[in-house]
Amino acid sequence: MKAVVFDKKLKLDNNYEKPVPQKGEALVRVTLAGICNTDYEITKGYMGYVGVLGHEAVGIVEEINDEDKSLLGKRVVPEISYGCKKPDCPWCAQKLYRHCPDRHTLGIWRKDGVFAQYFTMPLETLFEVPENVPDNQAVFVEPLAAALEITEQYHIKPFEKVVVLGDGKLGLITALALNAQNLDVTLVGKHQNKLDIAKAQGVKTRLLQDFPIEKIYDVVVEATGSVNGFETSLALTKPRGTLVLKSTVATGKELNLAPIVIDEITVLGSRCGQFPPALRLLESRKIDFTPLISGIYSVDDAIEAFEKNKEKDTLKILLRF
Amino acid sequence: MKAVVFDKKLKLDNNYEKPVPQKGEALVRVTLAGICNTDYEITKGYMGYVGVLGHEAVGIVEEINDEDKSLLGKRVVPEISYGCKKPDCPWCAQKLYRHCPDRHTLGIWRKDGVFAQYFTMPLETLFEVPENVPDNQAVFVEPLAAALEITEQYHIKPFEKVVVLGDGKLGLITALALNAQNLDVTLVGKHQNKLDIAKAQGVKTRLLQDFPIEKIYDVVVEATGSVNGFETSLALTKPRGTLVLKSTVATGKELNLAPIVIDEITVLGSRCGQFPPALRLLESRKIDFTPLISGIYSVDDAIEAFEKNKEKDTLKILLRF
Repeated sequence: MKAVVFDKKLKLDNNYEKPVPQKGEALVRVTLAGICNTDYEITKGYMGYVGVLGHEAVGIVEEINDEDKSLLGKRVVPEISYGCKKPDCPWCAQKLYRHCPDRHTLGIWRKDGVFAQYFTMPLETLFEVPENVPDNQAVFVEPLAAALEITEQYHIKPFEKVVVLGDGKLGLITALALNAQNLDVTLVGKHQNKLDIAKAQGVKTRLLQDFPIEKIYDVVVEATGSVNGFETSLALTKPRGTLVLKSTVATGKELNLAPIVIDEITVLGSRCGQFPPALRLLESRKIDFTPLISGIYSVDDAIEAFEKNKEKDTLKILLRF
Repeated sequence: MKAVVFDKKLKLDNNYEKPVPQKGEALVRVTLAGICNTDYEITKGYMGYVGVLGHEAVGIVEEINDEDKSLLGKRVVPEISYGCKKPDCPWCAQKLYRHCPDRHTLGIWRKDGVFAQYFTMPLETLFEVPENVPDNQAVFVEPLAAALEITEQYHIKPFEKVVVLGDGKLGLITALALNAQNLDVTLVGKHQNKLDIAKAQGVKTRLLQDFPIEKIYDVVVEATGSVNGFETSLALTKPRGTLVLKSTVATGKELNLAPIVIDEITVLGSRCGQFPPALRLLESRKIDFTPLISGIYSVDDAIEAFEKNKEKDTLKILLRF
């Protein structure tokens, strides 16, 4: 089968071995997949991963190695990690597979990803896509679930002021997701064209250059991935407020953590989320992800798609199978 | 009056002007005061402060400029900050004066401190010391309140495992305070002699060199003040656990914040605390701070006391007035 593989370099392999579903697993035929910045980080060496890339996809279940055949022929999306499923694993018991110490993660850790014609995953990680949600929206379920994770971890009260800093796809999806929950969100970024995507769907937006940096916001979501963004986020968070860290900031300079102590700020690391609330939100059609799609490439042009993904103004690049 | 003043350099001033209590304030005659690492940081330029140093003290109220004379002649301890007291200040309304944007802080910010024969403070910041608490215990109320602040900010459940990392005075006081609340605390440090102080009062202790670094602890309190300590604390905090940042870590090297996101850790900045719970704990005599006292100096020997404070094995240095 065709597969986008990273092994020291990125390549399209036209004869990658088709996976065989193990007991309890399904074989899924990919129809559409999305490139995430994590995929790009992996091509720079993140996690030391070697194998098929990709963890955002929608596809059709073609085969099931289990008595339960209920998902056969269904259109599904995969959560990205599966756990050990041992009876004494507290993470698996809570369906928080992403924290299981013995986890496998699609295209990131010990598990071939979804940038291929087929992938396999355990049945409990697959979720049926509601009929009214097209592939080009369903493929956003993973980053949308990651955005909703914030409200799974932390109770943002309806009267609290939220700032999302950064208007890349992470910031846009986060602002749209929080706004869809009727929270008081302002998206702050440097690019009017990107801000306008959120604005058109009802999100308050501000250009960073016009935005007063005052520590008055109850919740600030850092979605720039830069040290400057982290420091600006700290400067916007009110005393005893919460700074949500969504992107993996690697500091290349000294970082002063004293403001966290002086202002008693809570820095909340936030990663992936569970799929059911994200699918519910997709089904309600409260968000339209179409304006975030910067290009749809055939898997045959995957290398070109990765190049396009690097460009400054690119938002989401999709791969068609 | 005698006062220990910082103005570019540290000096003992024998003719510093005695302060006059303003409306709503009391004049307090200091009997005993404690040197804190923040005082030492100020002598290195922290906060750009100039004036009388010190914020940990016990003393006698000698004069009150207010109709309410109830504290006259009483032995008191001062909270370190006072606020604007404007009717619309949410911080002052909650008695969280330390977060009032228009605050004054003893010996740190816009307010002469307590390393002097007299200081003044607003009445609402002064708390009477219970009769059974001697001066050499009462003088620990401020760092004790700061340790108790952790449980004011965050609900540590009785079955959760807590590690306090660092066996300096911050770590010792924090471990003793959490242990006095019947929490499951282990103090981890590099100095057997310091660990033994906590051990003698019922705290579980471990030498760092013998302590397995596993991410299995629900709550980790970073009390080393070093970047290495911060990184070790991260490595001890379980996924979705809480790292309490007590000391102002200034990083002199690159700091990788990715583990905060990957393990969805909450980093909780924690600073000063309110005095009533600390005074209640002192009154109960559940903790004996005597073994933490490394020396008691006359104010006339204050410079020498500051020198002693810098020494590696020193815990708390007190100044007698």
